[in-house]
Amino acid sequence: MSLALDPAAQDLLFREAQTANTFTDEPVADEQIQAVYDLVKFAPTAFNQSPLRITLVRSQDARKRLVNHAMGANGPKTLAAPLTVILSVDLDFHEKLPRLFPALPDIKDTYFSEPAAREAAGTQNATLQAGYFILGIRAAGLAAGPMTGFDFAGVDKEFFGDGKQKSFLVVNVGKPGADAFFPRSPRLEFAEAAATV
Amino acid sequence: MSLALDPAAQDLLFREAQTANTFTDEPVADEQIQAVYDLVKFAPTAFNQSPLRITLVRSQDARKRLVNHAMGANGPKTLAAPLTVILSVDLDFHEKLPRLFPALPDIKDTYFSEPAAREAAGTQNATLQAGYFILGIRAAGLAAGPMTGFDFAGVDKEFFGDGKQKSFLVVNVGKPGADAFFPRSPRLEFAEAAATV
Repeated sequence: MSLALDPAAQDLLFREAQTANTFTDEPVADEQIQAVYDLVKFAPTAFNQSPLRITLVRSQDARKRLVNHAMGANGPKTLAAPLTVILSVDLDFHEKLPRLFPALPDIKDTYFSEPAAREAAGTQNATLQAGYFILGIRAAGLAAGPMTGFDFAGVDKEFFGDGKQKSFLVVNVGKPGADAFFPRSPRLEFAEAAATV
Repeated sequence: MSLALDPAAQDLLFREAQTANTFTDEPVADEQIQAVYDLVKFAPTAFNQSPLRITLVRSQDARKRLVNHAMGANGPKTLAAPLTVILSVDLDFHEKLPRLFPALPDIKDTYFSEPAAREAAGTQNATLQAGYFILGIRAAGLAAGPMTGFDFAGVDKEFFGDGKQKSFLVVNVGKPGADAFFPRSPRLEFAEAAATV
């Protein structure tokens, strides 16, 4: 069954795109990340809470401080990428809710008054946004290299000392370099991933 | 700055798409959800763990059992949708890793031997996949209505009695009906969501 989305767009976002492990030297401009953000910001979060925060790691000093918390091959991979971003949850996202979700002006002080409730909802919704963001990087004609192999508690201490942001994913961004891709691993068949009740 | 993705595709997936709250009677076929899955399955998860499971709620009985665990308006909204899917994490996703990630055949018994480690990684990666899936629904020319307002522990008891799957999102799927959309809420500016270090 065919989809409404143009086949070239399907290829760009899903079928031909792969996680990149090496990148060319071609720089990635702030404006490119802004264009990605200005597209993917429209995808849904619960109560439009939009808790994802994006930290562009530009300076050599910041890059080194980040890599100190990388595991295994993620360190050298990150040092060699033209741009690396840290994705984190804003644990105080509720402060912006009166503006972001005017239909229910009191949820800042009801549903989201407790830090534990905010962290649970914020983590879930920032992770959904991370999925949108990875596809947005591809929409910009760039390759993403998302990594979970970091000591995120260490990253938080290093970059978010006030305890108000919790990092959960680091993403290298750029044009794929030499031998950028591992062979595509198999995916589950629909019948394995889906069931009908 | 313009993106590589065709503007019509940008509109379909992000700019013109919105969370739908009502749907027409037009049915959604299993084959449509399969086409969505067969596209979005290629988007990345850590170690290709692919922990997302999709439960298509088709029978009237199953629909009623699901709605018993809905909060507020989510009940009637769900009863009226042509198709509803439950998104869940397979807490035993590691059993499939030797096939899904042949490059590291032992991670099933190392990184992912502990249930707590599996639940943390599985939840994060299934949530990324939920983000891909929502965009995939839109890629099929359908509207998604994702909802977190369910008693998910109740849903799990009702549908996943063996404790091996944990639900975290319910998504209505169909063609948007009358007054399907709330007015678009504002999004954060790039400078509010992003910082450079």
